[in-house]
Amino acid sequence: MSEPSLPSEALVKRAAELDAADELAPRRELFVLDDDSVYLDGNSLGALPRHVPERVQDVITRQWGELRIRSWTEGGWWVAPERIGDRIAPLVGAAPGRVVVGDSTSVNVFKAVVAAARIADEGRDEILVDAATFPSDGYIAESAARMTGRRLVPVAVGELPGALGPRTAAALVNHVDFRTGRLHDLPGITAALHDAGALAIWDVCHSAGALPVGLDAHEVDLAIGCTYKYLNGGPGSPAFLYVAERHQEAFDSPLPGWTSHADPFGMTPDYTAADGATRGRVGTPDILSMLALEAALDVWEGVSLDVLRAKSLALTDFFLRCVEAYAPAGRVASLTPAAHAERGSQVALRCAEAPAVMAELIARGVVGDLRRPDVLRFGFTPLYVGFRDAERAARVLGDVLRDVS
Amino acid sequence: MSEPSLPSEALVKRAAELDAADELAPRRELFVLDDDSVYLDGNSLGALPRHVPERVQDVITRQWGELRIRSWTEGGWWVAPERIGDRIAPLVGAAPGRVVVGDSTSVNVFKAVVAAARIADEGRDEILVDAATFPSDGYIAESAARMTGRRLVPVAVGELPGALGPRTAAALVNHVDFRTGRLHDLPGITAALHDAGALAIWDVCHSAGALPVGLDAHEVDLAIGCTYKYLNGGPGSPAFLYVAERHQEAFDSPLPGWTSHADPFGMTPDYTAADGATRGRVGTPDILSMLALEAALDVWEGVSLDVLRAKSLALTDFFLRCVEAYAPAGRVASLTPAAHAERGSQVALRCAEAPAVMAELIARGVVGDLRRPDVLRFGFTPLYVGFRDAERAARVLGDVLRDVS
Repeated sequence: MSEPSLPSEALVKRAAELDAADELAPRRELFVLDDDSVYLDGNSLGALPRHVPERVQDVITRQWGELRIRSWTEGGWWVAPERIGDRIAPLVGAAPGRVVVGDSTSVNVFKAVVAAARIADEGRDEILVDAATFPSDGYIAESAARMTGRRLVPVAVGELPGALGPRTAAALVNHVDFRTGRLHDLPGITAALHDAGALAIWDVCHSAGALPVGLDAHEVDLAIGCTYKYLNGGPGSPAFLYVAERHQEAFDSPLPGWTSHADPFGMTPDYTAADGATRGRVGTPDILSMLALEAALDVWEGVSLDVLRAKSLALTDFFLRCVEAYAPAGRVASLTPAAHAERGSQVALRCAEAPAVMAELIARGVVGDLRRPDVLRFGFTPLYVGFRDAERAARVLGDVLRDVS
Repeated sequence: MSEPSLPSEALVKRAAELDAADELAPRRELFVLDDDSVYLDGNSLGALPRHVPERVQDVITRQWGELRIRSWTEGGWWVAPERIGDRIAPLVGAAPGRVVVGDSTSVNVFKAVVAAARIADEGRDEILVDAATFPSDGYIAESAARMTGRRLVPVAVGELPGALGPRTAAALVNHVDFRTGRLHDLPGITAALHDAGALAIWDVCHSAGALPVGLDAHEVDLAIGCTYKYLNGGPGSPAFLYVAERHQEAFDSPLPGWTSHADPFGMTPDYTAADGATRGRVGTPDILSMLALEAALDVWEGVSLDVLRAKSLALTDFFLRCVEAYAPAGRVASLTPAAHAERGSQVALRCAEAPAVMAELIARGVVGDLRRPDVLRFGFTPLYVGFRDAERAARVLGDVLRDVS
């Protein structure tokens, strides 16, 4: 192993200046992070907000342990899916009453795709899916298509507008590609789908909490998102479902569990759907995980999404500049677009020997992740990653690339 | 309000004798319970095992907070659904590899009913459902039937054998009726279904952790169960799905999420199902709730299900005897069968003014619950309810019945 490289004085100075000017920098103190490592995997699992353990302890020892069953009503457990949905709503540009929390992202994809197929005219027999989608969305969309008598058609997002027609019922698209970090044109694609008479279903797993999404403003029909990445809800924390107000009355869930009933404690044999986003609920909500997520959302108090976005772009710009400075020429190539309008909050680098490189990066305290076979992913969570982190990560990457061949 | 009744000396003495002879009595110390109240709602939300808060704290602060993403592999998070399934398996009479944990009970009902419909011959176009089922099962089964081109037929469990025929694909039946506490004949009904060429899907929400279930021994095809009742996993803790070994290869999930893939990190566009019960997984597992459940299962170490069942029956016998002694004649009528072979681990009493009676019972420290319009439910969790609790609950019920009219 070679000696670690000396930092570039200019880059270190610039990092310090950027950190000093960063109004979000103090937010880092809200999280449990150590200075021995640089955590660039918040796009997979967000870091722990410091105050969450104490809040969860209260949920367990007092709400469950002492109040027990009374917490369902007195403790607000029953309405947690809607209450927490309303906390997430402003982060994705939704008015209250349009977002409900619960189940995994995959289960919510199923609800959304089936509901969209049922809203669409029967003659529209095609459901399009982002060909580079996070695989689970594709598997689940295939099942939803099969179970609603539709055909699933994978289409590259760039070719989506040309693939639309009178047979298109809906398209399921990722706002940010999980592999490359490419940000897709949500307003433009949504408008194109609407022009074709189809519904737009967006997966905002990699944009919620990373950049402004604007679900209401851009007239998105349905959306699903994850809360354990940029929203820091904890491992496998419940996902969310957005249903535009104009579709709520027609939202016909394939999973009409009792908590989505208009009168759940009537316990009648016949199903009558509740109003609003509640219709997206299924079974008894998973309270420990849900209230951990609710606590985690406190870190967003007072955060401007425009400031967040500006910092995210500045971070990934700066990281790419540092990588260019430190990495041996030709060893990595960015899959993440240079254009700001096409970039999410991660940088993906194609790299030979990517598995060995990522293992060594992690061993040296730079935690990103690998997407097989050859992609190094680095997630930049604007609430807790700083510019010095970006410089250090790129410098260590340069060293590792010289050592691993 | 009248003066509280004096306890019957004979019943109090008998309760003390039964408690003294109860080999499960020391288990009560494993739970957070107070002596001011009698908790008979463990069939809705099990009490908190004392050691759970510390274990969850470790999951949050160390596994999530410090190890972060590494816990998915090094910390065993990824295999938690199967590992915890194997912990539940002996409690429901299943060999390892047949139970997987995750999602809500309702979501698992959907998986099971759709999978059963797909295993059955296409000509079998009817799915039967217990007419008195917990409503969510009925709503979800209706959706599963609709989405697999079947017809849902509600049938009273007692009339089920006569309703079977060449059109029956499967029946979804509750092992214990949530309202009345009636235990249905799982071996007999399963055999009748098999004789008719149909599959048996059992909902064991109200029997898992309360009595021996014997899924393997009785050749049940598919089963679902809840973990927050007699298994004390915490509010809304993840449910479980049982898939008999002989059906695992044909188990075709309607929710084929990425964690059920044979090579989830291959992230290929095509879906290939994993082997075994893993096929029942969907999305990223909800780790906080799942590991709280895993910790909670420690209380079962060394418990014999036969001893558990004997205590459960003795408790409900004794409670019914005390109710007969204390309650004014004709004010309550038991909906729970007297025959042991037909009784779960709860007592349901039909009662005029049931809502006011239950509210007053709770105010006086006897916590049961109400099933509208006129059912008082009292759950007897053998691990932490004692005979003195049963005597006291019946005595307070007698007082309340005299005061509420």
